[in-house]
Amino acid sequence: MTYTLILLRHGESEWNAKNLFTGWVDVALTDKGRAEAVRGGALMVEAGVLPDVVHTSLQRRAINTACLALDAADRHWIPVRRNWRLNERHYGALQGKDKKQTLEAYGEEQFMLWRRSFDTPPPAISDDDEFAQTGDPRYADLGDDLPRTECLKDVIARFLPYWEGDIVPDLKAGKTVLVAAHGNSLRALVKHLDQISDEDIAGLNIPTGMPLVYELDEDLRPIKAGGTYLDPEAAAAAAAAVANQGR
Amino acid sequence: MTYTLILLRHGESEWNAKNLFTGWVDVALTDKGRAEAVRGGALMVEAGVLPDVVHTSLQRRAINTACLALDAADRHWIPVRRNWRLNERHYGALQGKDKKQTLEAYGEEQFMLWRRSFDTPPPAISDDDEFAQTGDPRYADLGDDLPRTECLKDVIARFLPYWEGDIVPDLKAGKTVLVAAHGNSLRALVKHLDQISDEDIAGLNIPTGMPLVYELDEDLRPIKAGGTYLDPEAAAAAAAAVANQGR
Repeated sequence: MTYTLILLRHGESEWNAKNLFTGWVDVALTDKGRAEAVRGGALMVEAGVLPDVVHTSLQRRAINTACLALDAADRHWIPVRRNWRLNERHYGALQGKDKKQTLEAYGEEQFMLWRRSFDTPPPAISDDDEFAQTGDPRYADLGDDLPRTECLKDVIARFLPYWEGDIVPDLKAGKTVLVAAHGNSLRALVKHLDQISDEDIAGLNIPTGMPLVYELDEDLRPIKAGGTYLDPEAAAAAAAAVANQGR
Repeated sequence: MTYTLILLRHGESEWNAKNLFTGWVDVALTDKGRAEAVRGGALMVEAGVLPDVVHTSLQRRAINTACLALDAADRHWIPVRRNWRLNERHYGALQGKDKKQTLEAYGEEQFMLWRRSFDTPPPAISDDDEFAQTGDPRYADLGDDLPRTECLKDVIARFLPYWEGDIVPDLKAGKTVLVAAHGNSLRALVKHLDQISDEDIAGLNIPTGMPLVYELDEDLRPIKAGGTYLDPEAAAAAAAAVANQGR
């Protein structure tokens, strides 16, 4: 018995295109991002890997990516589950800031620490910041769980309970599971699956809109480390571009 | 304590535009239909009536209408539930047939009997018809429940268990519920809510893409019979057009 898991990072968003730190700001997809999502669905059809259930974050760019990819794959009708624990990393006070300007203002070392340090979060966002989630009805029930900033370690801590409690049961029920989420919530999952060290995870980038398929054994360990991109060449090129953001 | 229910018939589909009987054939929205869905979401925002949960059929035109309307209303993140019991009436052997040609071939009386009779279904579709749902994975678990044709009475019989078992509990939990569905599954619900007779329901038409809001009392009876369209003038004009289809 093996289990099939498909990871899909949302297509290009308006703020990916503008090179701004996004985090929990709920920006839309660009036309390019929509096209990426549709192509992601077509790649699933070509590979014959079709989801039975989809899990998304509470953010528009992942939700719309799932809608478009599933529609293209003729799987628009499958059950949908959403949870804030699949959201992108909260980027704290950097949300809404230009990546290039941030790099120039703070220098390479601080910039990369904020972007890729495992356990150093950016400064917390203040509740009256225009890009804070204070008062957003979708997070009203979170109380003290509402993040004001996060490092990758924090994302793992809030993501894993959802993995264990909600996604794993779907896998164990024999369903092919699609997780439509974000660069850092998917890095958190890949780190867990592939048992990547706190140091090595800094070098792992996940491209937008490319389905990444993991076949998992009975202990939920990947049969092939790193999984399989349905379009490997395009994925490698796109991951390199992600690594160079801000340059 | 009152409960708030929003009904939304999908926007114009490709087969609405071509004047074909659709039923369970899973056609897409037209550009006009997409625009109607977006406007439906904007009308909810204007009226300040925002859903906390959405129930849809398993059909693309209702699913995409819900996606577009909720995105426009900034409620794309709410929980989603889907069920075949919200599907359009199964149109039997008429699925895929031209409405005008059917009217000419069979005459006014038979045509209106198939379209609006409470308890006379069209001829059943054969399992090898190109427009049958045989082998469709989304209905694989239905077994003998899979319809081959339906009259409105049949739709009510399969819809009401879902109403009682799934939608009413959401209402009683205090949630504003959006039901994104179809002309005849929504007529089934309106007949039940407004206690419309088997004869009078023939004259009731629900326009595409116009949110219809019911405030319900503690016994789930409408406080205002017929509910309230968020755009009443446009709704009346559109309902008249539906009534004249095939002419």
